[in-house]
Amino acid sequence: MSLVNEFSIPAALAELERSRGGHKAVVCGDIEYDYAALRARSLRLAAALEGAGVGQGDRVLWLGQNSRRVLEGVCAAAHLGAMFCPANWRQSGEELAFVIDDLQPKIIFWQDEEIGEAVQSARELAAHEARWIQHDSAPENEFEAFLDAAPAAPSPRFVDPASPVLIVYTAAFEGRPHGAMLSQAALMIQSLVVQRVQEIEPGTVFLNSGPMFHVGTLMTTFATFFIGGTNVFVRRTDPAELLRLIDRHRCTFAFLVTKLCMEMTELNKDGRYDLKCLRSQTFFPEWDAMVTINPRDTRNTSYGYGQTEVNGLITWTFDNQPGDVGAHGRVAPLTQLRIVDDADKDLPAGEVGEIVLRGATVMSGYWNRPEINARRQRNGWHHTNDLGRREADGSVTFIGPKTQMIKSGVENIYPAEVEGCLRRHPAVADAAIIGVPDPKFVQVVKAIVQLKPDAEADAEALIEHCRAHMASYKKPRSVEFTDKIPRTNIGMIDYRALDEAYGGGNYPGGALRGH
Amino acid sequence: MSLVNEFSIPAALAELERSRGGHKAVVCGDIEYDYAALRARSLRLAAALEGAGVGQGDRVLWLGQNSRRVLEGVCAAAHLGAMFCPANWRQSGEELAFVIDDLQPKIIFWQDEEIGEAVQSARELAAHEARWIQHDSAPENEFEAFLDAAPAAPSPRFVDPASPVLIVYTAAFEGRPHGAMLSQAALMIQSLVVQRVQEIEPGTVFLNSGPMFHVGTLMTTFATFFIGGTNVFVRRTDPAELLRLIDRHRCTFAFLVTKLCMEMTELNKDGRYDLKCLRSQTFFPEWDAMVTINPRDTRNTSYGYGQTEVNGLITWTFDNQPGDVGAHGRVAPLTQLRIVDDADKDLPAGEVGEIVLRGATVMSGYWNRPEINARRQRNGWHHTNDLGRREADGSVTFIGPKTQMIKSGVENIYPAEVEGCLRRHPAVADAAIIGVPDPKFVQVVKAIVQLKPDAEADAEALIEHCRAHMASYKKPRSVEFTDKIPRTNIGMIDYRALDEAYGGGNYPGGALRGH
Repeated sequence: MSLVNEFSIPAALAELERSRGGHKAVVCGDIEYDYAALRARSLRLAAALEGAGVGQGDRVLWLGQNSRRVLEGVCAAAHLGAMFCPANWRQSGEELAFVIDDLQPKIIFWQDEEIGEAVQSARELAAHEARWIQHDSAPENEFEAFLDAAPAAPSPRFVDPASPVLIVYTAAFEGRPHGAMLSQAALMIQSLVVQRVQEIEPGTVFLNSGPMFHVGTLMTTFATFFIGGTNVFVRRTDPAELLRLIDRHRCTFAFLVTKLCMEMTELNKDGRYDLKCLRSQTFFPEWDAMVTINPRDTRNTSYGYGQTEVNGLITWTFDNQPGDVGAHGRVAPLTQLRIVDDADKDLPAGEVGEIVLRGATVMSGYWNRPEINARRQRNGWHHTNDLGRREADGSVTFIGPKTQMIKSGVENIYPAEVEGCLRRHPAVADAAIIGVPDPKFVQVVKAIVQLKPDAEADAEALIEHCRAHMASYKKPRSVEFTDKIPRTNIGMIDYRALDEAYGGGNYPGGALRGH
Repeated sequence: MSLVNEFSIPAALAELERSRGGHKAVVCGDIEYDYAALRARSLRLAAALEGAGVGQGDRVLWLGQNSRRVLEGVCAAAHLGAMFCPANWRQSGEELAFVIDDLQPKIIFWQDEEIGEAVQSARELAAHEARWIQHDSAPENEFEAFLDAAPAAPSPRFVDPASPVLIVYTAAFEGRPHGAMLSQAALMIQSLVVQRVQEIEPGTVFLNSGPMFHVGTLMTTFATFFIGGTNVFVRRTDPAELLRLIDRHRCTFAFLVTKLCMEMTELNKDGRYDLKCLRSQTFFPEWDAMVTINPRDTRNTSYGYGQTEVNGLITWTFDNQPGDVGAHGRVAPLTQLRIVDDADKDLPAGEVGEIVLRGATVMSGYWNRPEINARRQRNGWHHTNDLGRREADGSVTFIGPKTQMIKSGVENIYPAEVEGCLRRHPAVADAAIIGVPDPKFVQVVKAIVQLKPDAEADAEALIEHCRAHMASYKKPRSVEFTDKIPRTNIGMIDYRALDEAYGGGNYPGGALRGH
């Protein structure tokens, strides 16, 4: 790339300082600062990381909840050509330890409040050694001290914007998650798309009300950042706190799901908080009356289809034309989508096959998974592991994951992960996991368990076993016992038979928006 | 670039065929076709060009007016890694001959209607030999025969999207224009920006009512194409024909300037044509009543600042915040702008200096001008030759070209070009050109001429001399004679003194939108 064509996160940040230096960039608790300060802090953090030995291709792990420091961390990593990974803090100590040993970060920023126990347990379990820096210690703050001790800027270097800068773990289809690596170019070009679809502009005040370990929130964080808007960070999705923040900071946009809107509506029955500043799509009448409904989207439909591996949204519905058939619209410009069979041959319209993608926002690959990457990127197309259909009018419908997956709130639950955990219980011979429809959480997890001969374990014990080893949202809510888990003639769990027998359903796809 | 991250014009066209294959892509005279047909024709044109010896880096010249074939030509060139140049057909034979000899195209597509005389004259004057193919011959159409004789597709090849695909001549500051080379990536990323600023969507029906040898029109042509909208082509800006086309094809957007809107309003006094489908910014009450005023832009202001060398618009005003000072907004995301002094040092806010740019949409350079490119792209920034100011709030005001330039309608007139022509007249010793304010054309050209001792030539003869050798719009409308052209103490023409003496003014900058 010629230098006059350079675009990169550090270059964008320099321009933001020039063009909107005094505009509020960040609100996080009682802290607020502008783009000039955000750039200064990111540069200094880059210098601190460089001083701690972080360079091109190295990883920095965030074991904390939502924070302005996640944005700063990604910006700092961009300066160095390093990668920043915000881990899913809802995971158990064992699960976090897996991420630590898999990612092998040089630096781990960690948080004590609310998640200290799991983090400490992970620290003991992990074999990999790193420098640990607590980001919420007081009165002496380790993170700020780390910053303060560094020079104002790292040594100058050229970083190719095609190099990865963000890692988000996902896709635990085979029992363990993989870290999707997203490049600076992918984040920046995706932001142009998201700015258009979500109408993000410099006046946007985006409340980061979803978890920042998911691209569903992060894609808007970055779209808001690159256009020079204001990001309001909140540690986690606490409906009472969200109400207060929207009112106080006049947030114009937020990451919203039905369950959250229900809770916020209930808590604000007395109308104490004014949410008219918030532009929202339609959810239900009480909510709609409380906020401002975006005239462009008065239907409660999805934006489109996406996944972590392509940095969120990759098809959109907002500019569907009257009569369009596909539930998930068409791909964004600069992206290509095909529906293929197992031999990567194009399927005709109307037939269901795997969705494969190519374009500027596709991930660079999973961290440290050369074989899976070779398989998932075969023939030069990213294989999504998702099923879809091209309709006769060219629009696209996402059908669901190729492999069974369960949705609980905004979280994906991969049966192989929970089944593996259950099978590690001494009394369990075999186990299967299905999703049962739930009005609040989309689905809840049900386990079907085959015990070893003469072994004993009740539902409560098995649920507690899962709770102890995994993120709580993954644990079964109910357990059924059986003599034999049904399997297909090639030995795979027969989920269709289980769904029929135990009331499974409401799997991702259809009205949902991908994962 | 990894294959899964590929984006290119051929890949976008393949996706358009998949996702909007049956949607109307092109209207041109009585011809209409959809995206599947547009792709098929572009592939076949690429094969035909390949068969004629056009490959990576070769040039194809368009000596014709607006046509769907310009879009097809750019798409075909993209397949081959070649470059397509739509020349300014308003130029004289001499000027067109300069372009032919400068560009050295393998193929020249030419048009007889309206411009055949100048084209034939250019063909005789030019030294370079090329294959000439007439695109408006009848009943046997040479262009279509060229297509029909070719295979359905060119041989497969990988073309780097950073390679140039479009050449637009501009910037005749030193007397001769230069061809700005724009890459596939620049066209595609700029389209994302233009789609947002001009609200281009798949339902858009864009009337190419400005000349396609200017990026002012082309940037919207491509934004409409890449999102899957409909491009309506019209040979040239004929107000009666535009009225008919808007009404008949329900055009939603067009390239508009005040003069054109005045003419169309006059011609449609009886309301024969329904223009309510057309979304426009405010011009004047009679016009505004005839069309639909975009609620987002009810002020008659510019979109921002741009130039051919960055593929059109590079700053925008549409998301200015209340109180913003700069008349031309801020740069688009993925772009960087600095105001520098002659040593490329940043100037503080409030001081006027040269606008320098960097980013995804900046040109690859001028064709065949290594020395000028080295100078214009020194220190890794594109030097615009334009003056601007960063305001205290970070927004930007474009002041005007560093070198004197005159605006007539949408055309730039470079004094050096006209002065050179006048000096080639046997009676002229010295000459200078200024722009005089004009309510209809922004400015008109006035020549100040110093005759040789004892030589004789009246105003009419000198104007006729210019008309014979240059595009008609460049010729002086009036001539004043003087004993001595005033010059500064370093020998440059003293334009300030001339403007004062002869009523010059209204130069580009201020309320205008760059060039």
